[in-house]
Amino acid sequence: MKRFTEKIQSAANKELEKRIVAHLDDLTKPRGSLGRLEEFARRYCLCRGSADAVLEKIRFFTFAGDHGITEEKITPFPPEVTRQMVANMAVGGAAVSVMCRNAGIEYTVVDMGVTSDLDDMPNLLKRKIGYGTRNFSKGPAMTDAETLQAIRYGFDLAEQSGADILGIGEMGIGNTSSASAIYSLILGLDAHTTVGAGTGSTGEFLKRKTEAVQRGIVLHGDKAGDDPLAILSRVGGYEIAGMSGMILGAAANRVPVAIDGFIASAAALIAMRLEKNTREYMFFSHASAEKFHRDFLEKEGIRPILSLDMRLGEGTGAVLALEIIKQSMACYAQMATFSSAGVANKE
Amino acid sequence: MKRFTEKIQSAANKELEKRIVAHLDDLTKPRGSLGRLEEFARRYCLCRGSADAVLEKIRFFTFAGDHGITEEKITPFPPEVTRQMVANMAVGGAAVSVMCRNAGIEYTVVDMGVTSDLDDMPNLLKRKIGYGTRNFSKGPAMTDAETLQAIRYGFDLAEQSGADILGIGEMGIGNTSSASAIYSLILGLDAHTTVGAGTGSTGEFLKRKTEAVQRGIVLHGDKAGDDPLAILSRVGGYEIAGMSGMILGAAANRVPVAIDGFIASAAALIAMRLEKNTREYMFFSHASAEKFHRDFLEKEGIRPILSLDMRLGEGTGAVLALEIIKQSMACYAQMATFSSAGVANKE
Repeated sequence: MKRFTEKIQSAANKELEKRIVAHLDDLTKPRGSLGRLEEFARRYCLCRGSADAVLEKIRFFTFAGDHGITEEKITPFPPEVTRQMVANMAVGGAAVSVMCRNAGIEYTVVDMGVTSDLDDMPNLLKRKIGYGTRNFSKGPAMTDAETLQAIRYGFDLAEQSGADILGIGEMGIGNTSSASAIYSLILGLDAHTTVGAGTGSTGEFLKRKTEAVQRGIVLHGDKAGDDPLAILSRVGGYEIAGMSGMILGAAANRVPVAIDGFIASAAALIAMRLEKNTREYMFFSHASAEKFHRDFLEKEGIRPILSLDMRLGEGTGAVLALEIIKQSMACYAQMATFSSAGVANKE
Repeated sequence: MKRFTEKIQSAANKELEKRIVAHLDDLTKPRGSLGRLEEFARRYCLCRGSADAVLEKIRFFTFAGDHGITEEKITPFPPEVTRQMVANMAVGGAAVSVMCRNAGIEYTVVDMGVTSDLDDMPNLLKRKIGYGTRNFSKGPAMTDAETLQAIRYGFDLAEQSGADILGIGEMGIGNTSSASAIYSLILGLDAHTTVGAGTGSTGEFLKRKTEAVQRGIVLHGDKAGDDPLAILSRVGGYEIAGMSGMILGAAANRVPVAIDGFIASAAALIAMRLEKNTREYMFFSHASAEKFHRDFLEKEGIRPILSLDMRLGEGTGAVLALEIIKQSMACYAQMATFSSAGVANKE
């Protein structure tokens, strides 16, 4: 793990922050009147380590993988939907790809472990580690070697992206179960607290889902302890580990990341526990309508950018947040100053 | 007034709504999983009166005007700032113009009544009615004829815009006082409830501002009664009347409008009281940090799209909201359907 975390430094820098705030206060607007947009611009510049930072290149990645836990009949959607939706994302028909296209954001979907092979397609990257994880209610979902490989793939993609800022989301039938198990094991909560309906698991599906996640928690709790990597291996997924890796790679390269919803936040939680400085590079995009997501954000003292009752995943919330962060940096870099525009400040 | 309101019909249409929702449910996502984006797409299509509506042309207008109430020393910013900021908006240095440029939105600032004359500039439209309003703490701010003329200008701009959707904001030193007086007179509240700091009015400035607005409320309350047009004339402003007119013109042409913050919402409240159907055409963009705005939205049962502690005005919150509405319609119009993409729906 050390090679993924050793380069990550805190973005905090009092001297630099002073210069950033001085510039914000010199722009033609009352001080602080752009509200959280000023916070976003300040944080972005701190991450980039410069008061003259610009935000030009945005890269977006959706990580996809399948989950053995679906054997437990926890969702009404068949696992083939993962592969079908990955293809839909690659050709531009899914919500996240439509949104990225409309926002002018370069988009890629990454096959980290879909149960079947995908044809070559534009915008599709193959980083397959396995054909779906194993059923974590019966044993570990991944080996440690697989988990590290998935982290490495995400890390390298971030490092090679050349992006000023990244956005991440996911696709994987069954992956809300993995995310709930991660929240439970890291935060010490039972499945009833962290398991929600996900993609349409109600009634008997929800009952079986909660029970399966609880069995996983009991099975892995003692062995995993509070080791985030062990927790990720035992109950996570290829795409979740890929997202954790991308966050680590982004932070190691001083690139901020917009985190999508419930599942991406579980990957973010793993990354934060592996190296706490990663948190300074994260923008939590939105409060998902998925049960426990808002509670998680509150517990961690995180105020999300948006709250639009979304619960699709894929990265859809992160695309919207990126557009707002982009506007905050457009204002920072392009607004006139009081002196340049000949505008009087307070009397 | 009748010529401005008589064409405005309700956007409600059960049959059409069914077809819109059926299309939303056929898109490759779990039902309802795009949350409020589905609400925005549905409302947009209802406004446009078609299940095949597209959102292409966005036009944005900032209405500017000066206010006689500034004689009462209610703000630390000199009134010349209005003209200076209008010029800044026209040349692209203000936050709203930076944001519109970055969002690819055609932008115009309208001089409805700045205290001095502006040179000809790109993106500047002159619809000047007077050189600032009169001091509403001593008498009516505008004549009824001026108010109707301002409404007409806004109405005609909406009608001639050819836009699929409009965004509105404002600029005018002193105009939070007018907005507060409008809220007070329409909703029956005293100035202490509706007056906030605006653009930096704290301490003695805030004290004088609250007192001046309260004097205006007492002076005009009985004569204006609950007549929205009389209230607008007596305590409003040229730019506020222009925004009310644009909302009426938009609704008359089945064009939705993104309403910015505290002052634009006061114009929206006037429009709603003049013709209640206008509300169906409004998207309230954000909850401003300005005192009473969130209370107003709650009172009217309105859930804003964003809540980012912004309090700049100009239309900055509305630009961000328009980008989200645009994404909702991109998803509506461009996402694949389950059958077209070969994606399995629930088992």
